[in-house]
Amino acid sequence: MSGADLAAMARIALIAGNGRLPCQVADALNSAGRDFQVIAIRGEADEMTRQRANAEIGWGEIGRLYGFLEKTGCREVLLIGGVSKRPDFTSILGDFGTLKRLPTIIRALAGGDDSLLTKVIRLFEDEGYRVVGIKDVAPQLLASSGVLGRIRPKEDDWRDLQLALRATEKLGELDIGQAAIAVGGRVVALEGAEGTDAMLERCAELKRIGRIRAKAHTGVLVKTAKPDQDLRVDLPTVGPRTIDLAQAAGLAGIAVEADGALVAEREETLSKADAAGLFVIGINRGNAAGPGDQ
Amino acid sequence: MSGADLAAMARIALIAGNGRLPCQVADALNSAGRDFQVIAIRGEADEMTRQRANAEIGWGEIGRLYGFLEKTGCREVLLIGGVSKRPDFTSILGDFGTLKRLPTIIRALAGGDDSLLTKVIRLFEDEGYRVVGIKDVAPQLLASSGVLGRIRPKEDDWRDLQLALRATEKLGELDIGQAAIAVGGRVVALEGAEGTDAMLERCAELKRIGRIRAKAHTGVLVKTAKPDQDLRVDLPTVGPRTIDLAQAAGLAGIAVEADGALVAEREETLSKADAAGLFVIGINRGNAAGPGDQ
Repeated sequence: MSGADLAAMARIALIAGNGRLPCQVADALNSAGRDFQVIAIRGEADEMTRQRANAEIGWGEIGRLYGFLEKTGCREVLLIGGVSKRPDFTSILGDFGTLKRLPTIIRALAGGDDSLLTKVIRLFEDEGYRVVGIKDVAPQLLASSGVLGRIRPKEDDWRDLQLALRATEKLGELDIGQAAIAVGGRVVALEGAEGTDAMLERCAELKRIGRIRAKAHTGVLVKTAKPDQDLRVDLPTVGPRTIDLAQAAGLAGIAVEADGALVAEREETLSKADAAGLFVIGINRGNAAGPGDQ
Repeated sequence: MSGADLAAMARIALIAGNGRLPCQVADALNSAGRDFQVIAIRGEADEMTRQRANAEIGWGEIGRLYGFLEKTGCREVLLIGGVSKRPDFTSILGDFGTLKRLPTIIRALAGGDDSLLTKVIRLFEDEGYRVVGIKDVAPQLLASSGVLGRIRPKEDDWRDLQLALRATEKLGELDIGQAAIAVGGRVVALEGAEGTDAMLERCAELKRIGRIRAKAHTGVLVKTAKPDQDLRVDLPTVGPRTIDLAQAAGLAGIAVEADGALVAEREETLSKADAAGLFVIGINRGNAAGPGDQ
């Protein structure tokens, strides 16, 4: 990329929730020579993120946020990292900038059947910002297609993989969940509001109390995007903790959507998976028929 | 019913798992003047059931079970009550009768994609028994259509009811789960191997930690049968504990399939629901459009 191209690229505001991902994206942006600012979400961003943040902003400080974006000349926005709690309505009634935009905010948050995050995107776009995703600025962080670690799925694993994949597709049609677990030819867990980690913990508990009977290293977690999921803000993610919990649940491996999911802390995640004897695989939708594909 | 009709009706073997339902069915059979024997499943049947049982049989004692059925002249079998643990393969290798039938049992349990219970039915049918369900012998225990308690669903409740109903239908297409919970226009929990009680507990916990935000008395549990579910052995059931857990989860009410679900301990269940301000409603599939129906 030439210097002129770089100069033409807008400065990015990285608005950071929890987890280590915001720092990894910041590293990727650094490596790519991109110009950016880190804005930590108060009560969510990790200590490491806060240390390199240029600003810290609470839920109610939308006026301050837009002021900061304008002052620093950021024209692009990247929302990254987790948000563990949905902000309630009273906590967003913070500063004057928030109050001034309240009609727009209410219109955005109330309208249509879109997810909260889609509505948040629209809020930024209404103010003239371009909302970008990891795919746009750091595609190397996404899962590629095929076996990602050293362990390969066995034949039985393919059956469980396909069962769980079909379940996530059905759930996706209803805009519910991203993940499912199949063990020994049976879908045993489906993700709702609890999230993937809690679903894996449940699966471990169900095995412990005998409600799921299976040999060790049996079963597959599949995590995909919903059909209309906006991958700019809501990217299915697996990381080291996913591996720990999948191991605790006695699973054989994990499948994520190639180019549509993030393997956070890739090196640590995959070496943990190798050590635990778990496969990690990137699958293409409609192309997960079996070992022959890979 | 004339004496001749009664005499023509076969003696029923009530094979009883856990819960209070087996005793209620026994009461219903008594009231109907039916002749029956109660066989308690060891390690599952409640104390009350065991007190009125004519025999107690463990998982491995299939030979003894068939011997008892033959000796007592039972030609019909009713499997009733819960089984908290799936028997493992070694525990069914019990007596000589089991060993003798092992080829049949293995063929039945291994063949096809049917559920374990469907396979168990086939085992009885292969031996010439007729497997009956609650619908055949005590239809008055099933949920009827319409509002069952004193509380009626509000308009928002109908939206959640329909969302959760669509989710259970999608899950049913994959032969997964029977239940889903929608809260405030969003499906938040789907039932896998954990069962309805555990799903309700999870919902309460997600509200407690703020992952689900909702006013009190918001959200609906829907429990339906899967399209191919054999209602002779696997009837969606709600009871007093369901009400307790739905109340703890802050829900507005519960919907079950009319004529396809059981309201166990009906009086206690409905009076608990009334006291908690929860509605309980029997819905007809494809006919749950809104308040106008009821």
